Amino acid sequence: MLTKKELKEFCKKARENYLPHISIDCVVFGFHEGVLKVLLLKIKKEDAWYLPGGFVLQQEPIETAANRILKERTGLDEIFLQQFHVFGDPERSKQHFDMYKDMLPAKENWFTNRFLTIGYYALVDFCETNPAPDQFSSTCNWCDLHAIPELRLDHALILKTALDALRLQLNYQPIGYNLMPKQFTMPELQKLYETILDKKLDRRNFQRRMLGFGILNRSEQPRKGGAHKAPYLYSFDLKNYEAALTEGFKGGW
Amino acid sequence: MLTKKELKEFCKKARENYLPHISIDCVVFGFHEGVLKVLLLKIKKEDAWYLPGGFVLQQEPIETAANRILKERTGLDEIFLQQFHVFGDPERSKQHFDMYKDMLPAKENWFTNRFLTIGYYALVDFCETNPAPDQFSSTCNWCDLHAIPELRLDHALILKTALDALRLQLNYQPIGYNLMPKQFTMPELQKLYETILDKKLDRRNFQRRMLGFGILNRSEQPRKGGAHKAPYLYSFDLKNYEAALTEGFKGGW
Repeated sequence: MLTKKELKEFCKKARENYLPHISIDCVVFGFHEGVLKVLLLKIKKEDAWYLPGGFVLQQEPIETAANRILKERTGLDEIFLQQFHVFGDPERSKQHFDMYKDMLPAKENWFTNRFLTIGYYALVDFCETNPAPDQFSSTCNWCDLHAIPELRLDHALILKTALDALRLQLNYQPIGYNLMPKQFTMPELQKLYETILDKKLDRRNFQRRMLGFGILNRSEQPRKGGAHKAPYLYSFDLKNYEAALTEGFKGGW
Repeated sequence: MLTKKELKEFCKKARENYLPHISIDCVVFGFHEGVLKVLLLKIKKEDAWYLPGGFVLQQEPIETAANRILKERTGLDEIFLQQFHVFGDPERSKQHFDMYKDMLPAKENWFTNRFLTIGYYALVDFCETNPAPDQFSSTCNWCDLHAIPELRLDHALILKTALDALRLQLNYQPIGYNLMPKQFTMPELQKLYETILDKKLDRRNFQRRMLGFGILNRSEQPRKGGAHKAPYLYSFDLKNYEAALTEGFKGGW
């Protein structure tokens, strides 16, 4: 949490620069070889964790704000963030209200405000990132989704809603271009889906459905080496992949 | 548009009661027997049309606000509204800024503010509604989606984004419980999907896919009368329908 001096400085800057009542929180999921994590911040002098979040400059488009906030708070840059939900419970930021209410008079105190927060999410390869804490945080870490620490405010709800949105997205959009190597086997791709869904999938159904989407090219050359029958190698058909991102899968209506 | 007197009154009330910088706009789609419409308002003394929208009370949950706004502006009550997107371009409400900037000093003028708007959409049977204009509107009408009049601000973009969200929803959630009679034929259900998607669907594929979702019960008794082979009658299996609303279709991963 902020000291009184830090709070005073922050509130002055915030009142001059940001839109009141609106914040942004980012849920960045990280995948690598069968493990799914989420990026969290531990705030200095607090035991609890937060999603990386922040406020919108007075004349800033919200997509620009989401990317700036993620960069300022975690060092992650050029991440494709997707908006998924606005959280508008009037009580959602009460913990911050209580934490800071005695430090500054209400009129000067940014955290006296109610805040709606706009949730954004992204899915990246966590091995290709280099997260770093900002001035307010002691730690900026990839945390395993099976061992999430206590989260402040409504950040557990925001995380759960983002995970639901990501899983739903598997039903209508391609995923994985930035997560898989250039060429991959069907079991390797299946592992990505199983990790996100946190469940086993049937091998044949997966292959049939995935091929039906028309976003994969099969290489003429199977992978070399290994004692068993060499598996086929696939790559994404970028033209069809992009089209499916905009229009949804062919398998749709 | 508001007269100077109306604007002055409105701005005073708005500054006292609403959160600044945030609005809500509702896209209500209406279906009946193969026709899809959208609910629009024509504002008094303006040639252009708007989606029904409004502002959020200082301590009001945003879902409550969306329903209150829709009721106040159109008379429609108890509509299931779903949040779909926040529109946050800093220039999106410039038309209102320009329209009202000379009528009141900036400090008193609500429309000097930049507004982010939260979009909500719903799908209802338009024959079961009775829309009525509010004090600001001369008309509140169901307009055919193929003949939408000029819309103010970014409301054409909001409408298009809502229609995309509705069409996407057909890929992962059941739809139609409040739109179909208790019992219906497969071609009647197909007509709903074709109307929303604005395209013809293959009869066999539609039936196979729809039955695969496991949300329909087939009646033992075919529909009576008619010269040809009587078609089977279906009804929604409410338990499976509700489950699919929460968890997505069985056909998912």
